[in-house]
Amino acid sequence: MRFDIISCQPDLLESPFSHSILKRAQTKDLVEVHIHDLRKYAINKHGQIDDYAFGGGAGMVMMIEPIDKCLSELKAQREYDAVIYMTPDGETLNQNIANQFSLLQNVIILCGHYKGVDERVRQQFVTHEISIGDYVLSGGELGAAVLADAIIRIIPGVLNDESSALTDSFQDGLLAPPVYTRPAEYKGLKVPDILLSGDGPKIDEWRFEQAIERTRLRRPDLLKDTDF
Amino acid sequence: MRFDIISCQPDLLESPFSHSILKRAQTKDLVEVHIHDLRKYAINKHGQIDDYAFGGGAGMVMMIEPIDKCLSELKAQREYDAVIYMTPDGETLNQNIANQFSLLQNVIILCGHYKGVDERVRQQFVTHEISIGDYVLSGGELGAAVLADAIIRIIPGVLNDESSALTDSFQDGLLAPPVYTRPAEYKGLKVPDILLSGDGPKIDEWRFEQAIERTRLRRPDLLKDTDF
Repeated sequence: MRFDIISCQPDLLESPFSHSILKRAQTKDLVEVHIHDLRKYAINKHGQIDDYAFGGGAGMVMMIEPIDKCLSELKAQREYDAVIYMTPDGETLNQNIANQFSLLQNVIILCGHYKGVDERVRQQFVTHEISIGDYVLSGGELGAAVLADAIIRIIPGVLNDESSALTDSFQDGLLAPPVYTRPAEYKGLKVPDILLSGDGPKIDEWRFEQAIERTRLRRPDLLKDTDF
Repeated sequence: MRFDIISCQPDLLESPFSHSILKRAQTKDLVEVHIHDLRKYAINKHGQIDDYAFGGGAGMVMMIEPIDKCLSELKAQREYDAVIYMTPDGETLNQNIANQFSLLQNVIILCGHYKGVDERVRQQFVTHEISIGDYVLSGGELGAAVLADAIIRIIPGVLNDESSALTDSFQDGLLAPPVYTRPAEYKGLKVPDILLSGDGPKIDEWRFEQAIERTRLRRPDLLKDTDF
């Protein structure tokens, strides 16, 4: 899968993609990530890519022309399945959307900054608008990194142990059960006996009950459409 | 405000905090961000901080001892208002929570990785569990960066133009209205006439209507408790 990320703050995106799982996915040739500096498509030699909002008000707006130029250059080279704009008023990302995106081949992610992009960009070029949650960030870069991470880690072969992703929260509609590791007792705090019992079926049952209980307590909304 | 972020992948956090608004907040001495490498508190010279889950199953669990040691060292130096654990089964972050956190002085953010931390860490040391959304990421580092960004940008003095944050999506319970900038016409695509009219009150009215309309279309759930 190929990601082309367009940003006016490309430096922000450096470390998330050059370490850990996102790096490994690229090293294994399962994923390509290309980060494009929007300033290379600026409208003048001063590197201008934004301007004041028509109608007044605080905050700058990203102009249509640099984005159009960058998108045109990319689209001339290959077909894209999606042009995703990161914006707090987009569709809220969830695991299901991440799963669907992970089936695509080539995607462009456009990061907003300041007050966002000129509305005409959204009307003309953008195919999906995604929000990572109901809060506002300095720019779309962290959102793009979050979206890419959520997608990349479920691409087959990226995680060393694929069954690990399948037992994550949300993949089965439930929150994950509590986990414990050594030592069995730490400063008087003990691991539940059942987990030390070696009784596989009983442990599975306990985990399932804990997952349901935790979901019922913390996120009853996730249980609405289930039989639990 | 001071952030102490504990991570076993501290390199991942480098670029988000060393550029743009998060860098400026630190340069202006409005915010301190300290990133702590959990491996310095490992239980042995091999740098071990995780182990297999009791009861079996895929994925590693972060051990209690290194986290306890790191937290104890920090807490011996100052009082903390919150020890926040980033986890997909935590309370879902929203703008209101970010606003509340922005009033605190000293916070610790603990990043999970692999299958998360030993449950005893959550029971004993963590005061708040936060999720940035209903999806799973490789680790808590991007979540921590998102949370810190959402908080830091609303600390007074961080943004150059403070009124800009007040007109963001969610701050007034509505999505932001569309924005446009020059040119007024681009390849036949025109800016709405009203925004070029110079009529301030009419423009404000249009924006308010657009914000309500956009919220009604995209996020009717946000309007439930309002009079709009």
